[in-house]
Amino acid sequence: MLQEKILASLSLGGGKTITTEHPLGPLTAHEITESAKIIKSSWPKNTNVQFKVITLQEPNKADLVPFLAAERAGKSTSTIERRSFVVYYIRNTNKLHEAVVNLSLGNVESNVRLGANVHSNADGDEIIQVEKIALEDEGVKAEIAKLNLPEGTVIISDPWIYGSDGINDGLFTDNERMFQCFLYIRDPKNSSEADSNHYAMPISISPVVSAETMKVTRIDFLPTGVDASTKAPGPYKVQPPNEYIPEGQEIRTDIKPLNVVQPEGTSFEVTKFSDQGHTIKWQRWDFKVGFNQREGMVLYDVHYDGRPLFYRLSLSDMNIPYADPRHPFHKKAAFDLGDAGAGIMANNLQLGCDCLGSIYYLSSVLNDDKGEPLNMPNCVCVHEQDAGIGWKHTNYRTGRAAVVRNRELVLQSIITVSNYEYILAFQFNQAGELMYEVRATGILSTQPIDEGISVPWGTVVHPGVLASHHQHIFSLRVDPMIDGPLNRVVFDEAHPMPRSDFNPHGVGYTVNETPITTSGGYDLDFDVNRTFKIQNAGVKNPINGKAVAYKIMAPPFQKMLADKESFHHKRAEFADHNIYVTSYAENELYAGGKYTNQSRGGTGVRSFADRKDNVLDDDIVVWVQFGINHVPRIEDFPVMPCEVLKVAFKPVNFFERNPAIDVPQSVQRVNKSELVEAVVQKEGDVCCKKS
Amino acid sequence: MLQEKILASLSLGGGKTITTEHPLGPLTAHEITESAKIIKSSWPKNTNVQFKVITLQEPNKADLVPFLAAERAGKSTSTIERRSFVVYYIRNTNKLHEAVVNLSLGNVESNVRLGANVHSNADGDEIIQVEKIALEDEGVKAEIAKLNLPEGTVIISDPWIYGSDGINDGLFTDNERMFQCFLYIRDPKNSSEADSNHYAMPISISPVVSAETMKVTRIDFLPTGVDASTKAPGPYKVQPPNEYIPEGQEIRTDIKPLNVVQPEGTSFEVTKFSDQGHTIKWQRWDFKVGFNQREGMVLYDVHYDGRPLFYRLSLSDMNIPYADPRHPFHKKAAFDLGDAGAGIMANNLQLGCDCLGSIYYLSSVLNDDKGEPLNMPNCVCVHEQDAGIGWKHTNYRTGRAAVVRNRELVLQSIITVSNYEYILAFQFNQAGELMYEVRATGILSTQPIDEGISVPWGTVVHPGVLASHHQHIFSLRVDPMIDGPLNRVVFDEAHPMPRSDFNPHGVGYTVNETPITTSGGYDLDFDVNRTFKIQNAGVKNPINGKAVAYKIMAPPFQKMLADKESFHHKRAEFADHNIYVTSYAENELYAGGKYTNQSRGGTGVRSFADRKDNVLDDDIVVWVQFGINHVPRIEDFPVMPCEVLKVAFKPVNFFERNPAIDVPQSVQRVNKSELVEAVVQKEGDVCCKKS
Repeated sequence: MLQEKILASLSLGGGKTITTEHPLGPLTAHEITESAKIIKSSWPKNTNVQFKVITLQEPNKADLVPFLAAERAGKSTSTIERRSFVVYYIRNTNKLHEAVVNLSLGNVESNVRLGANVHSNADGDEIIQVEKIALEDEGVKAEIAKLNLPEGTVIISDPWIYGSDGINDGLFTDNERMFQCFLYIRDPKNSSEADSNHYAMPISISPVVSAETMKVTRIDFLPTGVDASTKAPGPYKVQPPNEYIPEGQEIRTDIKPLNVVQPEGTSFEVTKFSDQGHTIKWQRWDFKVGFNQREGMVLYDVHYDGRPLFYRLSLSDMNIPYADPRHPFHKKAAFDLGDAGAGIMANNLQLGCDCLGSIYYLSSVLNDDKGEPLNMPNCVCVHEQDAGIGWKHTNYRTGRAAVVRNRELVLQSIITVSNYEYILAFQFNQAGELMYEVRATGILSTQPIDEGISVPWGTVVHPGVLASHHQHIFSLRVDPMIDGPLNRVVFDEAHPMPRSDFNPHGVGYTVNETPITTSGGYDLDFDVNRTFKIQNAGVKNPINGKAVAYKIMAPPFQKMLADKESFHHKRAEFADHNIYVTSYAENELYAGGKYTNQSRGGTGVRSFADRKDNVLDDDIVVWVQFGINHVPRIEDFPVMPCEVLKVAFKPVNFFERNPAIDVPQSVQRVNKSELVEAVVQKEGDVCCKKS
Repeated sequence: MLQEKILASLSLGGGKTITTEHPLGPLTAHEITESAKIIKSSWPKNTNVQFKVITLQEPNKADLVPFLAAERAGKSTSTIERRSFVVYYIRNTNKLHEAVVNLSLGNVESNVRLGANVHSNADGDEIIQVEKIALEDEGVKAEIAKLNLPEGTVIISDPWIYGSDGINDGLFTDNERMFQCFLYIRDPKNSSEADSNHYAMPISISPVVSAETMKVTRIDFLPTGVDASTKAPGPYKVQPPNEYIPEGQEIRTDIKPLNVVQPEGTSFEVTKFSDQGHTIKWQRWDFKVGFNQREGMVLYDVHYDGRPLFYRLSLSDMNIPYADPRHPFHKKAAFDLGDAGAGIMANNLQLGCDCLGSIYYLSSVLNDDKGEPLNMPNCVCVHEQDAGIGWKHTNYRTGRAAVVRNRELVLQSIITVSNYEYILAFQFNQAGELMYEVRATGILSTQPIDEGISVPWGTVVHPGVLASHHQHIFSLRVDPMIDGPLNRVVFDEAHPMPRSDFNPHGVGYTVNETPITTSGGYDLDFDVNRTFKIQNAGVKNPINGKAVAYKIMAPPFQKMLADKESFHHKRAEFADHNIYVTSYAENELYAGGKYTNQSRGGTGVRSFADRKDNVLDDDIVVWVQFGINHVPRIEDFPVMPCEVLKVAFKPVNFFERNPAIDVPQSVQRVNKSELVEAVVQKEGDVCCKKS
């Protein structure tokens, strides 16, 4: 079946029908090439097209829901036309277009030039080019010369998204796409080490490059004192290096190996539902996995034991606003998904480096700026992990313990966005719980600071190096279908009972449920234990009569600190509430809007919610925000220890009992643990070793 | 050295000097026996003494600090007299005593009868006896007969701490110690199964037993409707069972083994510093471990790389108030440490059941009610675990990734308090971080409810079975010595900068630090990212000049819901603030007071804090509260999936860089992971198996 499909897709490439792929299958290499070809053929020959994104245009929900239902029931499925969504520039212009290509018919279905102040993401080729342009500019070279650096010093350029302050995005026009380059030097004593940590040696020269002209249009000087003033470059004091690579350390030798061994293999099953799409089954869970340029991993049609839970799940957006108000730092507020892409920035994961145990890798194919397929090998790893005890009870009368372990299935993707890393993972367990975990790691974005001073918006993490405070605010998009397509969001609160004859001692409390009826933003409140649940009011638990639900357990975070009139706030439309609930609408996938780069706001989830739609027992979307206010510690440099954030979805009166009650007991026969005994080796020397 | 010490302790037992144990060593079996003997000899012969606690009376800090410093420096240590702390009743009376026995001199140093409304904890022998007394009482039997239960039905009695409502603790006097027994039946169709889950079959007869007379003094009937009214027992409807033991399940067969293998053994070293005390060294951490009846694990003298961090760390208290305001449920507010004991309730951990990998077990010795030693085998397990990626960075220019794993050292103890379990663990990592993790599991405390009704203070988890809402509120006692004995607690807050010429775009924010000067209770506030740090203002980071500190990362929780005038609130003196800071005082170890059983308040941390002592750059104690408002789900029955709570202490400007930067790289040569490949087994059947 599968093999036939792939062949069909390949052999039909030359004709009108390019593909018969599954409607949710990520674009194939062939489909990417064909999409680019079709777009290019719609322009005069020799038009230089810069492709930004060539990705699956997902079918309308109205078409896809019956298709998936029929597929699941083993019935014949209707034909859904296959489309790609293409974003491109006419190279070296600000002419940005978005197009939909009908791959089933082989034509361009729509092709629109987008208006002012709409800019696309950066792409990899462009970034490398911008780096080079900044360093080869004669003006920049002249400024660098004033630093009196040791001969042979290597300069490194980190191009940054220009952000937007809403007033001066371009040099000549307000509609120019820009890059702000932050410059560093490589340790002059170690010039040939390409992995030397340049973030420990920032310099104050910051060229601005136009993405249209691909020329340096301005050279900024960074403020390095306690105020906003800047100085002309002068002799640079080279401080000691601060390396993260093992060659820069005396590596500790007293940590012994710990291996995860799965002698009978894994408990999950991966099959392909299309050339690029995978179905995963594990412990009563089953779902489809897609992968795209922007969101990276996307889960579709998530079921547990045949019962529908989620139609679609993905990380939708992320914003990282910085605390330093001084030009040009005031524009640092990256959207790592919309401005760059969690898919395109995904690491090629290596066996034995990023996970333990038995690992299955998913690879993917995206596009480059020429519209050619770009292979993304090992961009997702699938494995199981032990997460400690799942449940335990000991009967104190008999001494008999019943205990099981909590096994998790993990889908992990790691993205590098310039200096920084995010380890992103969907996790499933045997108790019907689904988690989304983010580990923040990588290198702080640094800037030069004069010696001997400190500022309240950042931390000195190395001599002459400031790491500004910043927030990481994430938005997870949850398109639920808890036991069916019509859901509501309710919140529980616990309140004390008033004193009365019924509560004479003042100890009673009740939990009350409030449904959300209108789209909008809602917040956690731990003082009343406010708990949001996605509920199907039409399906009752057969034992206690409560509506079946999944609760959302999200860690609290400080909302965006930038004020409500700021462009940071206007642009990051998700950063002001823990939960947004909106009614489903086609093409509303991104909490910060479809085009985040130098955006001006008005196109994200706050705007969707402002429709004040009904969200009670309707087709709804839930947006879960979480994050950290990262006040850097010196311990976060040169690479920060992972900061772990976790959102969990747990069943509430969805099952009839603990769904993990049937997990096999945790026993030595299976676990094969090893007893370590204290052995007196010589007098006074007792230590642990294998028994 | 060590062996000599142990021999010394044993051989000198007959003389005046009983012991030369290390001042922090938990009592030896011999010391327990001698303590009991000395107490008994102070009473007329044939006095029946009921020993509650015979435990180490820890030395005064003024004596111990110089001792530990000398010991660490390898200098000769002063002699510190060894004492035991003994709590006992004259059996079958309310005559409660606390005594201090000087084991070095072999005499009773103090022996005080405690006043009214002071009661000791329950002990294991007593609990078993109370169970029996309730079931053998003729009045109780007569009431049970009215249930018309099938012949041979087994009744189970769960004695509960009586709590206190402050007005009617005793039948005849206000100073009587009581037990409230909650009764259940075992599934009549499975009467011989001693591990059948009786919590699925509660009955409404609740005998009250006096701990003095050891007789049933009253029989309560439980309300089972929507109001507080009670009914006389009538025919009982036996519902289907809800078992948790594997014999009660169709066990799933599709989960394959996952083993943790440590081919070269463990990376930690355990030595004994006394007969019952252990020193553990691992990855630059070193500390002493004690174990006692009440707190279970206690950590002393915690250092990292030779730098002092914590003088003493332990779980200090726990309170579990219930939401049902009706008699007798209004008294349910257990202090599982003070009323029972985290040490004495610790499970005997079994290899391959409670942890994976290479495990070292610590055993301990406590006392029984006769003053005899009670062996507590395998009450703590020590092992390492992999906690995912520790840090990672990929240089996108070279493609080279640097990545390490996060290894943790875990000290785990699991306690069973009647129906419920807590998995308690201290965790250390290679980034200088220390965590305290609680996993809440076990069986919900259940009560009967009439069919077809629901109440807002509980959840029906099985036909006829109500699990009331309840809170779990924990208090972790932290006696810090961050780089020295004098510390302060400060809190950081992040606030937006006002708009100004310096902040023209409204995006800037600052982090400001506020020191706490006076003892008191303090709260988290996520809206300003309030972060508490334990700081040594006298020691500055050599690179950025900031005072060295450890921050406290505690999850938020709803404070106690019972009103401020309630006895629940008065008794649980820690349940109203996230953080308490007090000045150090001898014998102030327990956040809810020394005697929690039927306590009336006024002896816990709120009272300590009310001294309004200086806590700035002083010898201080920090009490960290955390917990959950457990609104039961039907998924929490018959045994609930672990709910995980974690408090972390992380260095802030304590080191000069990421202390885990020297961890060896995560590489396949060491990790020996296994690649799983999709293999087409037959057409259309693709699955994962070992490559």
